Amino acid sequence: MSENNKFTPIKTLGEYGLIDRIKLNARNKNKNTTKGIGDDAAVIAISKNESVVISADMLIEGVHFDLMYTPLLHLGYKATTSNLSDIYAMNAKPEQILVSIAISNKFSVEAIEEIYQGIKKACDFYAVDLVGGDTTSSTTGLVISITAIGRANPRNITYRNTAKKGDVLMVSGDLGSAYLGLQILEREKAVFTENPNMQPQLNEYQYLLQRQLRPEARKDVVKMLEEMQVVPTAMIDVSDGLASEVLHICQQSKVGAIVYEEKIPIDPSAVEVSCDFNINPTTCAMNGGEDYELLFAINLNDLSKFKNHPHFTVLGELVSEEKGAKLKLKGGNSCKIIAQGWNSLLEK
Amino acid sequence: MSENNKFTPIKTLGEYGLIDRIKLNARNKNKNTTKGIGDDAAVIAISKNESVVISADMLIEGVHFDLMYTPLLHLGYKATTSNLSDIYAMNAKPEQILVSIAISNKFSVEAIEEIYQGIKKACDFYAVDLVGGDTTSSTTGLVISITAIGRANPRNITYRNTAKKGDVLMVSGDLGSAYLGLQILEREKAVFTENPNMQPQLNEYQYLLQRQLRPEARKDVVKMLEEMQVVPTAMIDVSDGLASEVLHICQQSKVGAIVYEEKIPIDPSAVEVSCDFNINPTTCAMNGGEDYELLFAINLNDLSKFKNHPHFTVLGELVSEEKGAKLKLKGGNSCKIIAQGWNSLLEK
Repeated sequence: MSENNKFTPIKTLGEYGLIDRIKLNARNKNKNTTKGIGDDAAVIAISKNESVVISADMLIEGVHFDLMYTPLLHLGYKATTSNLSDIYAMNAKPEQILVSIAISNKFSVEAIEEIYQGIKKACDFYAVDLVGGDTTSSTTGLVISITAIGRANPRNITYRNTAKKGDVLMVSGDLGSAYLGLQILEREKAVFTENPNMQPQLNEYQYLLQRQLRPEARKDVVKMLEEMQVVPTAMIDVSDGLASEVLHICQQSKVGAIVYEEKIPIDPSAVEVSCDFNINPTTCAMNGGEDYELLFAINLNDLSKFKNHPHFTVLGELVSEEKGAKLKLKGGNSCKIIAQGWNSLLEK
Repeated sequence: MSENNKFTPIKTLGEYGLIDRIKLNARNKNKNTTKGIGDDAAVIAISKNESVVISADMLIEGVHFDLMYTPLLHLGYKATTSNLSDIYAMNAKPEQILVSIAISNKFSVEAIEEIYQGIKKACDFYAVDLVGGDTTSSTTGLVISITAIGRANPRNITYRNTAKKGDVLMVSGDLGSAYLGLQILEREKAVFTENPNMQPQLNEYQYLLQRQLRPEARKDVVKMLEEMQVVPTAMIDVSDGLASEVLHICQQSKVGAIVYEEKIPIDPSAVEVSCDFNINPTTCAMNGGEDYELLFAINLNDLSKFKNHPHFTVLGELVSEEKGAKLKLKGGNSCKIIAQGWNSLLEK
């Protein structure tokens, strides 16, 4: 092994820094490889009117989920929906998934079946077929790796690098709730660890917990955009927090952005609980992650189609690159948007 | 968590038993899902003349590889070729891969780059594009999960369940060498653990070690079959040992088989080393695994095309299901073929 010769700790680079190092010099050899590394999913051209969109994600016990408070059924469901979300973020429709799973012998067959029941529930709801994968043993924790395959007309596929200055920035649903759901679970875990006889107090937090434990992917958004005949100029799913996703669109599209704090959609229960935890709700939305909403940019001409739409919120606008990405605060000041969301490889 | 309620240990089922439990009741919802779980790869129909073939595999440190004797460059290369092998086993051509990797902080950026260098070397050699994946942290060992995507004319795709009684069973290359390469590495590891000043004695075993550490996928076999205008009636890659693969074809095609021990192609160096280890070379070929050769059945009418072909060996024939799968020994006796090859989930 050579890792002791010259040593750059991974935590100094983080996930995106590492990806930049890895993808360097990768030139595509197949003419039908339309999009490689650098978006929610890769795109493979099939014919003039058909492309395959494909994405892979890996979840590791102790990094992405804690089995102490994650029901296995929900784990399987979330592992699937979080992956499908990447396909919807390309404005495509998922049709198949492959699931690879590594399990230690602490799991029973019934426990594994429960995970797969969750996967199947998601497959049924999203009309996706489980077509393969791998099962193997793990020396330690549970690993779930899912590949999602979707299809779209190449003209409808939305990338991260095609937004334009002057476009309107929009988001579906609400943000920050999944992060607060996680905080509640972590708090109850701490209480339980301290005193195992305590019963968890979870009833009142149903919405936030569901957003964390059993999130849905925005299949309906892709359908609504189709019905409204809107093809966003760029789209990405909110998995690592709004800040991180806005920056992805800005950096890849070479634009700046103004996001208005007062516009950020946050559920009333999230506002309430964020007060209990003494966290600014805007911080939860900007840096919390795992909301699996869709952040997208549209041409100004399409804005009227979204008027009073209950599912979408205008967040702000895209400006020239030199202006950078800014959050316009409720008080009137502006601050630079910095990605502080989820990055499992970055130094904490 | 519910795994303590009713408890069936996974080791009582093994990988294929578990897959049978998992795939139960999975009915495909998309009309273009041609083949789901149960072959080397899934098949998705695209048009009359085009299908996408897709396969995923996961490699876990301590289960599938030992970093004490696996150079990272080779690990990346093998992780890729072993996956591409599944695409060739469908008589298809791989064009893209997605790589998901989980790394603990014991790895440096340079170590990860070395793994990716190996992946890229394989991508270059097989003209495949690395188009995406995931990078994340691991709480313990290294995990590499690869999805390979290929393409084929649906008329040329070879499944496991389409062989017929009377077909001829053939295999490319030679078998058992990868397993013996592993035995040599394990022996040297034991010697080194005992006395760290001992230098490993590996020069004379170059072929066997290369078969274990840096195997190739049989891209050339798919090309040769095309040139010879032969579409096998069934095909599978030899990853878990010849016995296991013969049984897959037999069970799925509902046929029996006679494999002639004297026909099994084994490299002279493998025969020699198997004597040193006091293992029957036939056992290495039948149960060793990781050879990544292609085992296939052809119609008897195609047999003449393979006459004196240096890359292929006639192993035996397919017979009626009732006759079972038998190994005809050199002495004239027959024994039932039992899968004793690699199965990371089965009780040892």
